[in-house]
Amino acid sequence: MDAWNPYAKDCPSRQLLDRIGDRWTALVLGTLEDGPLRFSEVARRIEGISQKMLTQTLRALERDGLVTRTVYAEVPPRVVYELSDLGRSLREPLRALETWATTHMPDVLEARQQADAA
Amino acid sequence: MDAWNPYAKDCPSRQLLDRIGDRWTALVLGTLEDGPLRFSEVARRIEGISQKMLTQTLRALERDGLVTRTVYAEVPPRVVYELSDLGRSLREPLRALETWATTHMPDVLEARQQADAA
Repeated sequence: MDAWNPYAKDCPSRQLLDRIGDRWTALVLGTLEDGPLRFSEVARRIEGISQKMLTQTLRALERDGLVTRTVYAEVPPRVVYELSDLGRSLREPLRALETWATTHMPDVLEARQQADAA
Repeated sequence: MDAWNPYAKDCPSRQLLDRIGDRWTALVLGTLEDGPLRFSEVARRIEGISQKMLTQTLRALERDGLVTRTVYAEVPPRVVYELSDLGRSLREPLRALETWATTHMPDVLEARQQADAA
């Protein structure tokens, strides 16, 4: 039995934890939650993400099996990105993290104000 | 009512989402789950974290109100780090993310092998 442990230096789960916690990963998977989208549609829903960053993020998600990329042989070819079952299973913990961030933003801002005033 | 939205470019919740999803944030908060620890004890439990990275991470967590730092006036002074209530509330989503990473590591590795062989 493998025991993956992100507290161990060379365990690949540490790098995976980093990857899945990345803000672009969370936001890209979030946009795909309601169904397949084209590159330009994902880009539009995540304000300010650069073309390069979105390309890199989608490639990494595809390689990790979280997102599938399908090319439809139309003219011009239509390319859509979609959550895989694995990607879908990651949405619940990521959504919880997103909810935490938006719910506790005021607490964190207050803590920062106090810290910076001290 | 504020509506925090990490999909919006300048919303501070985007940066917060990034911060809380950071691997070092997750691992440091994880080590503190069982009770307060000294700097050196946290460092020992997270294999390979540099002194500099741990210092930065703890400072950021303290500023954001997730961790408290207490100095006991002993000789030499004893400094301990502890989860605040806010930090404790973040543990559940982070634990879910950690569990996802360790549970699905084999799926991700398999996906990578297939992708790299294609």
